[in-house]
Amino acid sequence: MNILVTLNSNYLKPLKVMLKSLFINNPKERFYIYMIHSDMKETELSDISMLVQKDGNKFYAIRVRNEYFKDSPLTMHYTKEMYYRLLAFKFLPKDVDKILYLDPDILVINSIKKLYDTDISEYLYAAAYHDIPTVKEINRLRLKPYEVERYYNSGVLLMNISLQRELVKEEEILNFVQNNKNKLILPDQDIINALYAKYIKQINGIIYNYDPRYYKYNKIISKGNIDMDYVINNTSIIHFCGKRKPWQKSYTGEFYSLYKHYEKVAES
Amino acid sequence: MNILVTLNSNYLKPLKVMLKSLFINNPKERFYIYMIHSDMKETELSDISMLVQKDGNKFYAIRVRNEYFKDSPLTMHYTKEMYYRLLAFKFLPKDVDKILYLDPDILVINSIKKLYDTDISEYLYAAAYHDIPTVKEINRLRLKPYEVERYYNSGVLLMNISLQRELVKEEEILNFVQNNKNKLILPDQDIINALYAKYIKQINGIIYNYDPRYYKYNKIISKGNIDMDYVINNTSIIHFCGKRKPWQKSYTGEFYSLYKHYEKVAES
Repeated sequence: MNILVTLNSNYLKPLKVMLKSLFINNPKERFYIYMIHSDMKETELSDISMLVQKDGNKFYAIRVRNEYFKDSPLTMHYTKEMYYRLLAFKFLPKDVDKILYLDPDILVINSIKKLYDTDISEYLYAAAYHDIPTVKEINRLRLKPYEVERYYNSGVLLMNISLQRELVKEEEILNFVQNNKNKLILPDQDIINALYAKYIKQINGIIYNYDPRYYKYNKIISKGNIDMDYVINNTSIIHFCGKRKPWQKSYTGEFYSLYKHYEKVAES
Repeated sequence: MNILVTLNSNYLKPLKVMLKSLFINNPKERFYIYMIHSDMKETELSDISMLVQKDGNKFYAIRVRNEYFKDSPLTMHYTKEMYYRLLAFKFLPKDVDKILYLDPDILVINSIKKLYDTDISEYLYAAAYHDIPTVKEINRLRLKPYEVERYYNSGVLLMNISLQRELVKEEEILNFVQNNKNKLILPDQDIINALYAKYIKQINGIIYNYDPRYYKYNKIISKGNIDMDYVINNTSIIHFCGKRKPWQKSYTGEFYSLYKHYEKVAES
């Protein structure tokens, strides 16, 4: 499986936790980890490379010049590296035609084989959206006049790289960023939703992009079905969305102990 | 290391989770698991035996006649098997001179080597007490006239079996139960505290008998030191005391996701 990560040094530790959880819970798979970055130090790269190779997988670092998107709106929590997933098709080796992008604020707790094998031959992406009414409505209004019926989360993004090479135009993305500078909150995610929503295949958000902030909400609207037992045994990807992260001291939440467990395992 | 478990069929699944967590987090140790029981079925015993042997450890089942303690006060949540730890010295093979008793409602998340190696040559037991003011006071008043300054928790009990064979009198225990029938809430624990408190070596409750119900309390009184990070990296034994258990659907609590994780691992 091809896995794409794009991040900066601040997320080095979470990235290692994410990767370790991926390997542990998909022991039969072989992974090719591609990291697109600009500023990672050699020691940091070799740190990750060692972790990846220890479990029998391969690591490729792809350095991108700083010029890309240098005028993009960078907000406090989002860095320029986040744009690289939009242009990954330009930077990845020619033989990569499909790749699964994963944010570093993720735990993979079960197999992702079914996700990876999802047929996206007629889509640019596969992604999940979080079906929380207020979130949907806010984003729909915010991104007008673009029609955003569902606001997909770009933290887990299965990408049809072959088709992106044909259809995605770098200029279109750059123009969009230029024209919407002041509107963009989650820049890369806004771009994917505004420009490419129609080419996104929907995947199950509870299974492949579970947002632990909505643990109680999901449990209630599912009449108790989507409880802790369900999540631990069925969810493949927990995505710690939002500003509060489980590697921060102040974090609270139902999956904090599980995250710290994987953090310990990744360090050992 | 010698490990003692004493339980009935209702706790079969939790027992497997406890043992699996013990093996995973103490990979360098060899364990001799002794189970004292009365009513376990052959299929249940072989189920546990397989789990134990899978990780290279040994399993010994010791069946005890039902006559023992048949007049003891059995409360809803506590079964006669709980008394067996008091008389384990009678049932264990002669060559066992030290053993660590572990309740089944436990997760072992780090090494227990230091605990096992604790010098108890001059004590009958080593145990922790939960330093929660109200709990201590209630138990002190309840067990009067017995002097109970600290109410030790018997869920994690390092036992000096050699010395118990010399000093502990079965009749004393039977008489105590007979005379205090109506007072006993946690029968075996009450007995140990009332009769043998002076012969208990104190161990660190945060490290070896962490009660997750007091997560917030411990975090506050430690000024934030005993937080999630501390527990995951330093605590060896989480003991899910009380009526609400993490294998029940209605459970909530900071360590629920971690418990369910180990439950999944134990089943796989």
